[in-house]
Amino acid sequence: MTENSPASWLDEVKWDDNGLVPAIAQDVASGRILMMAWMNREALSLTAQEGRAIYWSRSRGKLWRKGESSGHVQKLHEMRLDCDADVVLLTVEQIGGIACHTGRESCFYRKLDGDHWQSVEAVIKDPGEIYQ
Amino acid sequence: MTENSPASWLDEVKWDDNGLVPAIAQDVASGRILMMAWMNREALSLTAQEGRAIYWSRSRGKLWRKGESSGHVQKLHEMRLDCDADVVLLTVEQIGGIACHTGRESCFYRKLDGDHWQSVEAVIKDPGEIYQ
Repeated sequence: MTENSPASWLDEVKWDDNGLVPAIAQDVASGRILMMAWMNREALSLTAQEGRAIYWSRSRGKLWRKGESSGHVQKLHEMRLDCDADVVLLTVEQIGGIACHTGRESCFYRKLDGDHWQSVEAVIKDPGEIYQ
Repeated sequence: MTENSPASWLDEVKWDDNGLVPAIAQDVASGRILMMAWMNREALSLTAQEGRAIYWSRSRGKLWRKGESSGHVQKLHEMRLDCDADVVLLTVEQIGGIACHTGRESCFYRKLDGDHWQSVEAVIKDPGEIYQ
Protein backbone atom coordinates (compact mmCIF):
# COMPACT_ATOMS: atom_id res chain seq x y z
CA MET A 1 0.00 0.00 0.00
CA THR A 2 1.43 3.35 -1.01
CA GLU A 3 0.54 6.81 0.16
CA ASN A 4 -1.57 7.46 -2.91
CA SER A 5 -3.51 4.23 -2.94
CA PRO A 6 -7.21 4.44 -2.14
CA ALA A 7 -7.04 3.26 1.46
CA SER A 8 -10.43 3.82 3.00
CA TRP A 9 -9.12 3.74 6.55
CA LEU A 10 -7.09 6.86 5.78
CA ASP A 11 -10.14 8.54 4.29
CA GLU A 12 -12.05 7.94 7.50
CA VAL A 13 -9.68 10.17 9.42
CA LYS A 14 -10.97 13.72 9.82
CA TRP A 15 -7.91 15.77 8.89
CA ASP A 16 -7.78 19.35 10.16
CA ASP A 17 -7.45 22.44 7.96
CA ASN A 18 -3.73 21.80 7.68
CA GLY A 19 -4.25 18.17 6.68
CA LEU A 20 -3.03 16.95 10.07
CA VAL A 21 -4.30 14.78 12.90
CA PRO A 22 -2.95 14.68 16.48
CA ALA A 23 -1.31 11.38 17.38
CA ILE A 24 -0.82 10.33 21.00
CA ALA A 25 1.88 7.77 21.79
CA GLN A 26 1.33 5.52 24.80
CA ASP A 27 3.88 3.04 26.09
CA VAL A 28 2.51 -0.48 25.77
CA ALA A 29 4.38 -1.72 28.83
CA SER A 30 3.97 1.09 31.34
CA GLY A 31 0.79 2.63 29.97
CA ARG A 32 2.43 6.04 30.23
CA ILE A 33 1.67 8.79 27.76
CA LEU A 34 4.96 9.46 26.07
CA MET A 35 4.15 12.34 23.75
CA MET A 36 1.72 13.88 21.34
CA ALA A 37 2.72 14.91 17.85
CA TRP A 38 1.05 15.38 14.47
CA MET A 39 0.64 13.26 11.37
CA ASN A 40 -0.36 14.03 7.84
CA ARG A 41 -1.83 11.38 5.58
CA GLU A 42 1.56 10.17 4.41
CA ALA A 43 2.91 9.92 7.96
CA LEU A 44 -0.09 7.91 9.14
CA SER A 45 0.07 5.64 6.12
CA LEU A 46 3.80 5.05 6.60
CA THR A 47 3.36 4.43 10.33
CA ALA A 48 1.02 1.54 9.55
CA GLN A 49 3.16 0.33 6.68
CA GLU A 50 6.51 0.38 8.51
CA GLY A 51 5.23 -0.48 11.97
CA ARG A 52 6.91 2.48 13.62
CA ALA A 53 5.76 5.97 14.54
CA ILE A 54 6.34 8.48 11.78
CA TYR A 55 5.11 11.97 12.47
CA TRP A 56 4.88 15.21 10.54
CA SER A 57 7.18 17.83 12.01
CA ARG A 58 5.30 21.10 11.84
CA SER A 59 8.42 23.10 12.74
CA ARG A 60 10.62 21.45 10.14
CA GLY A 61 7.85 20.94 7.59
CA LYS A 62 8.81 17.35 6.83
CA LEU A 63 8.30 13.75 7.84
CA TRP A 64 9.81 12.88 11.17
CA ARG A 65 10.75 9.26 11.59
CA LYS A 66 10.77 9.17 15.37
CA GLY A 67 14.19 7.92 16.46
CA GLU A 68 15.93 8.75 13.18
CA SER A 69 18.64 10.70 14.99
CA SER A 70 18.25 9.55 18.59
CA GLY A 71 17.70 5.86 17.93
CA HIS A 72 14.62 6.12 20.12
CA VAL A 73 12.31 4.47 17.65
CA GLN A 74 8.70 3.82 18.60
CA LYS A 75 7.69 0.36 17.44
CA LEU A 76 4.00 0.25 16.69
CA HIS A 77 1.95 -2.17 18.72
CA GLU A 78 -1.56 -0.97 17.96
CA MET A 79 -3.30 1.99 16.38
CA ARG A 80 -6.67 3.41 17.36
CA LEU A 81 -9.01 6.15 16.18
CA ASP A 82 -11.38 8.11 18.39
CA CYS A 83 -15.13 8.53 18.04
CA ASP A 84 -14.83 11.80 16.13
CA ALA A 85 -12.11 10.32 13.91
CA ASP A 86 -9.89 13.31 14.59
CA VAL A 87 -7.35 11.86 17.04
CA VAL A 88 -5.11 8.83 16.65
CA LEU A 89 -3.73 6.79 19.53
CA LEU A 90 -0.59 4.71 19.05
CA THR A 91 0.41 2.06 21.51
CA VAL A 92 4.16 1.68 21.12
CA GLU A 93 7.25 0.00 22.39
CA GLN A 94 9.61 2.87 23.16
CA ILE A 95 13.10 1.79 22.24
CA GLY A 96 15.65 3.09 24.74
CA GLY A 97 12.88 3.99 27.19
CA ILE A 98 13.18 7.65 26.23
CA ALA A 99 10.62 9.52 24.15
CA CYS A 100 11.44 13.12 25.01
CA HIS A 101 14.17 15.19 23.37
CA THR A 102 15.10 16.35 26.88
CA GLY A 103 16.25 12.81 27.66
CA ARG A 104 13.24 11.90 29.77
CA GLU A 105 10.93 8.92 29.36
CA SER A 106 7.89 11.09 28.70
CA CYS A 107 7.43 14.60 27.35
CA PHE A 108 4.89 15.18 30.13
CA TYR A 109 7.42 15.70 32.90
CA ARG A 110 6.01 18.97 34.26
CA LYS A 111 3.23 18.76 36.80
CA LEU A 112 1.01 21.62 37.90
CA ASP A 113 1.87 22.31 41.51
CA GLY A 114 -0.32 25.10 42.82
CA ASP A 115 0.50 28.04 40.55
CA HIS A 116 3.51 26.70 38.68
CA TRP A 117 4.65 23.80 36.52
CA GLN A 118 7.14 21.67 38.40
CA SER A 119 9.57 19.27 36.72
CA VAL A 120 8.99 15.96 38.46
CA GLU A 121 10.98 13.54 36.34
CA ALA A 122 14.66 12.87 36.06
CA VAL A 123 16.66 13.10 32.86
CA ILE A 124 17.63 9.52 32.00
CA LYS A 125 20.24 10.46 29.43
CA ASP A 126 21.84 13.78 28.60
CA PRO A 127 20.48 15.16 25.30
CA GLY A 128 24.07 15.91 24.30
CA GLU A 129 24.74 12.19 24.39
CA ILE A 130 21.52 11.32 22.55
CA TYR A 131 21.99 13.72 19.64
CA GLN A 132 25.62 13.47 18.71
CA MET B 1 -7.74 32.93 40.98
CA THR B 2 -9.96 34.13 38.17
CA GLU B 3 -9.58 33.73 34.44
CA ASN B 4 -8.17 37.23 34.08
CA SER B 5 -5.66 37.12 36.89
CA PRO B 6 -1.99 37.08 35.94
CA ALA B 7 -1.34 33.38 36.41
CA SER B 8 2.08 32.63 35.04
CA TRP B 9 1.39 28.92 34.65
CA LEU B 10 -1.30 29.77 32.09
CA ASP B 11 1.09 32.07 30.26
CA GLU B 12 3.59 29.24 29.93
CA VAL B 13 1.17 27.29 27.76
CA LYS B 14 1.79 27.71 24.05
CA TRP B 15 -1.70 28.36 22.74
CA ASP B 16 -2.33 27.68 19.06
CA ASP B 17 -3.58 30.24 16.54
CA ASN B 18 -7.11 29.70 17.80
CA GLY B 19 -6.06 30.17 21.42
CA LEU B 20 -6.46 26.48 22.15
CA VAL B 21 -4.37 23.63 23.50
CA PRO B 22 -5.07 19.88 23.13
CA ALA B 23 -5.88 18.15 26.42
CA ILE B 24 -5.57 14.40 26.81
CA ALA B 25 -7.56 12.69 29.57
CA GLN B 26 -6.12 9.53 31.08
CA ASP B 27 -7.90 7.38 33.65
CA VAL B 28 -5.97 7.40 36.91
CA ALA B 29 -7.03 3.87 37.81
CA SER B 30 -6.76 1.96 34.53
CA GLY B 31 -4.20 4.16 32.79
CA ARG B 32 -6.42 4.13 29.72
CA ILE B 33 -6.59 7.12 27.41
CA LEU B 34 -10.19 8.22 27.61
CA MET B 35 -10.32 11.08 25.13
CA MET B 36 -8.65 14.15 23.73
CA ALA B 37 -10.38 17.49 23.55
CA TRP B 38 -9.41 21.15 23.48
CA MET B 39 -9.11 23.89 26.07
CA ASN B 40 -8.86 27.63 25.84
CA ARG B 41 -7.29 29.67 28.60
CA GLU B 42 -10.52 29.97 30.53
CA ALA B 43 -11.20 26.23 30.31
CA LEU B 44 -7.73 25.34 31.54
CA SER B 45 -7.93 27.87 34.36
CA LEU B 46 -11.36 26.60 35.44
CA THR B 47 -10.20 22.98 35.25
CA ALA B 48 -7.51 23.72 37.83
CA GLN B 49 -9.82 25.88 39.87
CA GLU B 50 -12.76 23.49 40.02
CA GLY B 51 -10.80 20.24 39.99
CA ARG B 52 -12.74 18.79 37.08
CA ALA B 53 -12.15 18.68 33.34
CA ILE B 54 -13.63 21.65 31.53
CA TYR B 55 -13.01 21.77 27.81
CA TRP B 56 -13.74 24.20 25.02
CA SER B 57 -16.21 22.76 22.55
CA ARG B 58 -15.06 23.81 19.11
CA SER B 59 -18.31 22.66 17.50
CA ARG B 60 -20.54 24.48 19.97
CA GLY B 61 -18.17 27.40 20.52
CA LYS B 62 -18.54 27.36 24.28
CA LEU B 63 -17.18 25.92 27.50
CA TRP B 64 -17.95 22.26 27.94
CA ARG B 65 -18.06 21.10 31.54
CA LYS B 66 -17.48 17.43 30.89
CA GLY B 67 -20.35 15.52 32.42
CA GLU B 68 -22.73 18.46 32.53
CA SER B 69 -25.46 16.53 30.73
CA SER B 70 -24.26 12.92 31.10
CA GLY B 71 -23.12 13.09 34.71
CA HIS B 72 -19.84 11.59 33.55
CA VAL B 73 -17.69 14.17 35.24
CA GLN B 74 -13.90 13.83 35.11
CA LYS B 75 -12.46 14.60 38.52
CA LEU B 76 -8.99 16.02 38.18
CA HIS B 77 -6.22 14.06 39.80
CA GLU B 78 -3.18 15.68 38.22
CA MET B 79 -2.32 18.01 35.37
CA ARG B 80 0.82 17.94 33.27
CA LEU B 81 2.38 19.97 30.47
CA ASP B 82 4.64 18.60 27.78
CA CYS B 83 8.14 19.74 26.83
CA ASP B 84 6.91 22.04 24.07
CA ALA B 85 4.21 23.43 26.38
CA ASP B 86 1.60 22.82 23.70
CA VAL B 87 -0.19 19.74 25.04
CA VAL B 88 -1.82 19.20 28.43
CA LEU B 89 -2.33 15.81 30.06
CA LEU B 90 -5.01 15.33 32.66
CA THR B 91 -5.10 12.35 34.92
CA VAL B 92 -8.70 11.94 35.97
CA GLU B 93 -11.17 9.84 37.86
CA GLN B 94 -13.88 9.10 35.30
CA ILE B 95 -17.21 9.16 37.09
CA GLY B 96 -19.53 6.44 35.75
CA GLY B 97 -16.62 4.76 33.98
CA ILE B 98 -17.77 6.21 30.65
CA ALA B 99 -15.96 9.01 28.84
CA CYS B 100 -17.32 8.60 25.31
CA HIS B 101 -20.63 9.98 24.06
CA THR B 102 -21.20 6.59 22.40
CA GLY B 103 -21.50 5.05 25.88
CA ARG B 104 -18.07 3.45 25.87
CA GLU B 105 -15.32 3.81 28.47
CA SER B 106 -12.90 5.39 26.01
CA CYS B 107 -13.36 7.34 22.79
CA PHE B 108 -10.57 5.22 21.28
CA TYR B 109 -12.67 2.14 20.65
CA ARG B 110 -11.71 1.63 17.01
CA LYS B 111 -8.58 -0.33 16.26
CA LEU B 112 -6.79 -0.53 12.94
CA ASP B 113 -7.19 -4.08 11.72
CA GLY B 114 -5.40 -4.46 8.40
CA ASP B 115 -7.11 -1.96 6.14
CA HIS B 116 -10.07 -0.95 8.28
CA TRP B 117 -10.98 0.46 11.67
CA GLN B 118 -12.66 -2.18 13.78
CA SER B 119 -14.83 -1.38 16.81
CA VAL B 120 -13.36 -3.48 19.59
CA GLU B 121 -15.16 -2.20 22.66
CA ALA B 122 -18.62 -2.74 23.96
CA VAL B 123 -21.11 -0.01 24.67
CA ILE B 124 -21.51 0.07 28.44
CA LYS B 125 -24.63 2.20 28.45
CA ASP B 126 -26.95 3.23 25.66
CA PRO B 127 -26.42 6.90 24.75
CA GLY B 128 -30.21 7.32 24.78
CA GLU B 129 -30.13 6.51 28.47
CA ILE B 130 -27.15 8.75 29.14
CA TYR B 131 -28.50 11.85 27.45
CA GLN B 132 -32.15 12.02 28.46
